[in-house]
Amino acid sequence: MLVERCVENPLITPADVVPSRDDYEVVGAFNAGATVYNDQILLLLRVAERPKDKADDEELAPILNPKTGQINPLRIKQSDPDLEILDSRVFNYKGKMYLTSISHLRLARSKDGVHFDIDPEPTVFPETDYETFGLEDPRITRIDDDYYITYKVVSESGICTGLLKTSDFKTFERCGIIFCPENIDVVLFPERIGGRLYALTRPVPMHIGPRGIWLASSENLTDWGAHRPLILPRPGMFDSGKTGASCVPIKTDAGWLEIYHGSDQNDRYSLAAALLDLNDPSKIIARSKAPLMQPEADYEVKGFYGNVVFSCGAITREDGTIIIYYGASDELTAAATTTIDNIITTMQ
Amino acid sequence: MLVERCVENPLITPADVVPSRDDYEVVGAFNAGATVYNDQILLLLRVAERPKDKADDEELAPILNPKTGQINPLRIKQSDPDLEILDSRVFNYKGKMYLTSISHLRLARSKDGVHFDIDPEPTVFPETDYETFGLEDPRITRIDDDYYITYKVVSESGICTGLLKTSDFKTFERCGIIFCPENIDVVLFPERIGGRLYALTRPVPMHIGPRGIWLASSENLTDWGAHRPLILPRPGMFDSGKTGASCVPIKTDAGWLEIYHGSDQNDRYSLAAALLDLNDPSKIIARSKAPLMQPEADYEVKGFYGNVVFSCGAITREDGTIIIYYGASDELTAAATTTIDNIITTMQ
Repeated sequence: MLVERCVENPLITPADVVPSRDDYEVVGAFNAGATVYNDQILLLLRVAERPKDKADDEELAPILNPKTGQINPLRIKQSDPDLEILDSRVFNYKGKMYLTSISHLRLARSKDGVHFDIDPEPTVFPETDYETFGLEDPRITRIDDDYYITYKVVSESGICTGLLKTSDFKTFERCGIIFCPENIDVVLFPERIGGRLYALTRPVPMHIGPRGIWLASSENLTDWGAHRPLILPRPGMFDSGKTGASCVPIKTDAGWLEIYHGSDQNDRYSLAAALLDLNDPSKIIARSKAPLMQPEADYEVKGFYGNVVFSCGAITREDGTIIIYYGASDELTAAATTTIDNIITTMQ
Repeated sequence: MLVERCVENPLITPADVVPSRDDYEVVGAFNAGATVYNDQILLLLRVAERPKDKADDEELAPILNPKTGQINPLRIKQSDPDLEILDSRVFNYKGKMYLTSISHLRLARSKDGVHFDIDPEPTVFPETDYETFGLEDPRITRIDDDYYITYKVVSESGICTGLLKTSDFKTFERCGIIFCPENIDVVLFPERIGGRLYALTRPVPMHIGPRGIWLASSENLTDWGAHRPLILPRPGMFDSGKTGASCVPIKTDAGWLEIYHGSDQNDRYSLAAALLDLNDPSKIIARSKAPLMQPEADYEVKGFYGNVVFSCGAITREDGTIIIYYGASDELTAAATTTIDNIITTMQ
């Protein structure tokens, strides 16, 4: 089997997470960035919350007031003619889109990679004008002795990508918006290539062009240029709808191994892999012809937004084993194991 | 009167421009960048062309083959059920958007700013993979002794912004894609501010956020970061729909004077102004409460895409006079004059 699901799956559920306040409930603990720090496996979870007192006849969107630091829900009666419910995650009201939950980032720590202690308090909480709808889908890249976290920054100004920096996972420095709207699923490469730093990005064009993975490069991690399309959706395949980077690229003898996500025309999200040239990541050496992993388990098919396996991080051991952490159905955290050799063999 | 239209308007029409090939016709000569070079006023026109032999019962999209350098039109019968005609500029076919003309950039030269000699050949012609649908809406910024041209790069990969560099307006160096899809109407400031280079950009978010002007900054003009929203649409006003930078910001004693365009809910494009702090252009000092200029003249109201005045460049004389060059109805080039003092007075 190409990947093997952990028998303990799901590893983390919303019920395992203490909400940030008593009158809120956690509805998602998923899409976690992953890294190793001080001999522990750290997951930086996206924790989605909403007020407990949501009435059955209303939709609500929890929104941060950056001046007070308080979250106040926008509440709309379902009978309101200006309301358009899109799916469990989002609705339109008077022509603007809102999220039905607000996410923050929360650390979980493990010795074995399977059993996690989840911090009782938020690790990084929305606070700026650009984070009023929440922080989502973090990826952690270690570069030298610092850890850089790219994350989806959501507010009424747009959906874009911010950068956090930490060296101790206690204090986090906000380094600003590094890709302006609409750009998500940004993953940094772990080292310079030919003197430049690289990122995979996912522009979301309104009028022309696919929703697929682009490449960008930088001198300093905060200013980015040299944009070009890279791993795009393939008509008729499992990734015909959208593609986006998932895990931090893994350096292998064969090339940079990128585990990415691809969705089809039914918005079913699978995981797949691409191999990029070690010295020039704009060159694709190989790409999965079939998914590494598709939604199959009950907790992947059903849930808050079903038919989704979506990774934001993996851990590679010295023996070539990979633990892929992934969000299932925009609700839970699960894991699956495979090896670098396994993945590369399937691409040949 | 706040601005005065040139009595010679329109200054340039499609009929004044020699097409790039005999079997094509010029349908637009508009949205020109402007600068002064060797005591001449230079306009870098957007010249839109299409095959002369377009049949009445078809839509066509001229597309560059970057391998051969040839433009071959995609021709669709209007009876085709997969065709959706959006307006005179664009159509959808099988879910993808195409342009009904392809644009290149062409120099026009003038001693008096009113009478122009138009080069008989294209100045910058589409040639790369990212330019297959054309080059559009150039802005020219002189920084020290070089001229940098930001332009809309359009292909099936997306609508984004590229950078050209020239010192002589004979040879042009392509410096890559500086803002990935979808981002247009990019204008560079003419000097460093606090050590950084600045640009106004116009992200086009698909899901959340307005289509308005953002600010970005850079060390080197090719890598950009520190994105933040700046001059956004204002509900209920003439610029309630979209805002985008038009001219290169003009340094005045009162601040950076930006002449921008704003459209309303009916896609009627006007010109207006904003004044930004000289030392921190993220601070708006003042902004037009009414348009500087709205589509009123016959050639602004009617045409290829009517009800549009859209500038990509202005020339400032030492006495504080400004000549605003603007595209009228996505077809012609016209000009209007005013003064810096006039504009600033109206914002107080």
